[in-house]
Amino acid sequence: MRFFFFYTLLLFAFQNLHAQDEDVLYVKKIHDEVLMNGKCYEWLSKLCLEAGPRLSGSPAYDKAVEVTSSLLETIPNVELRKQKVEVNYWERGLEEEVYLKTNENKKLKLHALALGNSIGTDGNFLEADVIEVQSLDEVEKLGKDKIQGKIVFYNRPMDASQLNTFRAYGQAADQRVSGPTRAAKYGAVAVMIRSLGFALNNIPHTGACKYADDTHKIPAVAISTKDADMLSDLLKKDVVKAGIKTNCLFRGKKETYNVIGEIKGKDHPEKIILIGGHLDSWDVGQGAHDDGAGCVHSMEVLRTLAALGYQPRHTIRCVLFANEENGLAGGNGYAEKARSNPKEFHTAAIESDAGGFVPRNFSFDADTSVLKAFFKKVNNWLPVFEPYGIQFELGGSGADIGPLKFQKGLLVGLRPDTSRYFDFHHTAIDSIEAVHPRELKLGAAAMASLVYMIDKYFD
Amino acid sequence: MRFFFFYTLLLFAFQNLHAQDEDVLYVKKIHDEVLMNGKCYEWLSKLCLEAGPRLSGSPAYDKAVEVTSSLLETIPNVELRKQKVEVNYWERGLEEEVYLKTNENKKLKLHALALGNSIGTDGNFLEADVIEVQSLDEVEKLGKDKIQGKIVFYNRPMDASQLNTFRAYGQAADQRVSGPTRAAKYGAVAVMIRSLGFALNNIPHTGACKYADDTHKIPAVAISTKDADMLSDLLKKDVVKAGIKTNCLFRGKKETYNVIGEIKGKDHPEKIILIGGHLDSWDVGQGAHDDGAGCVHSMEVLRTLAALGYQPRHTIRCVLFANEENGLAGGNGYAEKARSNPKEFHTAAIESDAGGFVPRNFSFDADTSVLKAFFKKVNNWLPVFEPYGIQFELGGSGADIGPLKFQKGLLVGLRPDTSRYFDFHHTAIDSIEAVHPRELKLGAAAMASLVYMIDKYFD
Repeated sequence: MRFFFFYTLLLFAFQNLHAQDEDVLYVKKIHDEVLMNGKCYEWLSKLCLEAGPRLSGSPAYDKAVEVTSSLLETIPNVELRKQKVEVNYWERGLEEEVYLKTNENKKLKLHALALGNSIGTDGNFLEADVIEVQSLDEVEKLGKDKIQGKIVFYNRPMDASQLNTFRAYGQAADQRVSGPTRAAKYGAVAVMIRSLGFALNNIPHTGACKYADDTHKIPAVAISTKDADMLSDLLKKDVVKAGIKTNCLFRGKKETYNVIGEIKGKDHPEKIILIGGHLDSWDVGQGAHDDGAGCVHSMEVLRTLAALGYQPRHTIRCVLFANEENGLAGGNGYAEKARSNPKEFHTAAIESDAGGFVPRNFSFDADTSVLKAFFKKVNNWLPVFEPYGIQFELGGSGADIGPLKFQKGLLVGLRPDTSRYFDFHHTAIDSIEAVHPRELKLGAAAMASLVYMIDKYFD
Repeated sequence: MRFFFFYTLLLFAFQNLHAQDEDVLYVKKIHDEVLMNGKCYEWLSKLCLEAGPRLSGSPAYDKAVEVTSSLLETIPNVELRKQKVEVNYWERGLEEEVYLKTNENKKLKLHALALGNSIGTDGNFLEADVIEVQSLDEVEKLGKDKIQGKIVFYNRPMDASQLNTFRAYGQAADQRVSGPTRAAKYGAVAVMIRSLGFALNNIPHTGACKYADDTHKIPAVAISTKDADMLSDLLKKDVVKAGIKTNCLFRGKKETYNVIGEIKGKDHPEKIILIGGHLDSWDVGQGAHDDGAGCVHSMEVLRTLAALGYQPRHTIRCVLFANEENGLAGGNGYAEKARSNPKEFHTAAIESDAGGFVPRNFSFDADTSVLKAFFKKVNNWLPVFEPYGIQFELGGSGADIGPLKFQKGLLVGLRPDTSRYFDFHHTAIDSIEAVHPRELKLGAAAMASLVYMIDKYFD
């Protein structure tokens, strides 16, 4: 594209604003500050490189607590503390291997990762015939006759025609979350799932499975999408056996922390606008998009408000939650403490846990008794956000702040563009290189802008 | 982020639509077709790998004509032709080198690229003292006294606080386009410019410079942003000389082609909805975002309409223009032929020349006598595009279709997200790896949807 000028969206928006001029200008000021002086990308690099992949309970998680605490301490007027959380410490262990064996005894090694929370095989190979299914229902239909003694291979791909890739993920993730329980119910000995991502490649995606309490637990692994296609092709022609060896196990309870930094409110110190993400990540990659991005987004909000000399009416509290990926002890623990402290009220809570891509939406949630009034109110702010291409929707907020719903405050999820997210989610390539500095900054600026509006217009 | 469901934008939009149900459904159908069966990414790979970087006049451009023609021929009912265009064939030549030399005679080699259309140094080193400036005005202020005999180094960075990075580019690109002419006017012997990109790295960005007709021509190169910072630091302490050796030259006129594929309209075959991009690219990288993406976007529109069995009322014409980067002979030549053929009218022309990123906007332009009425009309369609996060704005359209403005039809530019574009623009890394398949497809689907709406509601 050659050299040309054209009218900008912003200019266009300015012409159409009257009452909200002041807000428009302040939100532009916030964006200027973040785009020109933002630290979030630098901070994310530090978190990714110094702590790395940081599953709750691991030494790397402790390191992440240390790194983010020391970064929060560099922000003027931020009060820092740690909130104790007890987590179940799951560990992958060394030596994972998954192979296929056809009738001709050809052995093929697969690209695989044990699912989080899965039991292991104690380092021994568990070998059995593979049966492919498309859904949990199909397992039920096939019944014990066909399932008993087999390795169930869930192979329903994510639906690429879904505009919002999180929806495609949501529609496919039952295979990972509940697939093991369903298969075990009919006598399966293990489960393999097709990795939850659109890209056809050899990068397996892990993520949590959840055994029902009364289930006989069986090992579960994810294999890459390319391997899933290959296995499916082989099964069309032949009986295929798979061998699974894993060493994962729960290492018991461990005490760890939510990290909390806040700027006290001048009018309503007991009323809180929470901003947060989760500090834990899976144990592969660097947890850059999931959810290092959400952590540094939230930290950047504090830094930006401080840099602008903004004195909030409410207390602005940044919470980096523990254990979102495999237990939610951080979010549940935080809400429990809020419940036992009637002096504090969360006017709003905003979570960023959908990656560091360019912000597109805020999703609003609340108790049904207040949601309609809240959404009507925030919709008045749309002209302030439109120049940034940000829309509002009704929907979920975030896993960690969801437990605060009982307080009947406003809950919000930041929704960046979803196109690339599931290329990286829960994989070895969710690393700092996958995050674009400018896109990350735009997300933080959007959050800071919403905090400014809530602080001004909510009591 | 863990497993959750939430309301989708689409669902929300559906609830708010009444009159436009049919359009909403067809536009969803278009998106489904492109997302599930789209060929544009596969086609772009082929163009990038088989033709590669393809400056007008080069054998690689001829190859690009061949590749895209044969791909267009695979689409049912597409009539294919080539339109002759005469271009000035500029060539970089081999052996470019730029160095700095400080007072201590330390020589530092820079990451540099000659600017397009620049004259060369015939393979000899041109060495002179460097003087740094921030603008064309500064050159004028400094005058002959300070400029004579020097190499002028334009170092004004792009403004990162601009939301739309094309605007930041537009504000900085005068240094590249007109910098050489201005410097020559005051006796400079050569020009170096800071590469036009935000990223601080060692990847130089080329692009066209334009000598005023009466100018004494002087050589011009771009250096990487990191080298620009280093040079600026050195100049604060010391006199710095630079040496420039290039071999670029014009190889004279060459006959080449615009590539045209069209599906004839059933009601108004003489009325055209043009979709296009430019087939030429700079001679580094693979021209993936600039503008291979625009070419395959346009080709995908034809494929999608054909695949859906859509019979257009107007003729849908895909034009892949020659020579956008350094002459605009393709766009001007096309418009000239349109002028001499009063039987044909361009109801609309849509250009994609801003990369293969996720679509965010359409920018509408037209002769001032009709623009207001057009924009009012298309604004009624916003609810159809909102589920896809696409907004409408007034602004420019595209360099190649701009010359059609005299016909008083609708001119439109596709505007994808701008965050990453200037990481790749005119560089060696504008290659297929920089393009995301899903984002590319969403752009094509947006264009096809707009073509469908124009075909239905414009006469």
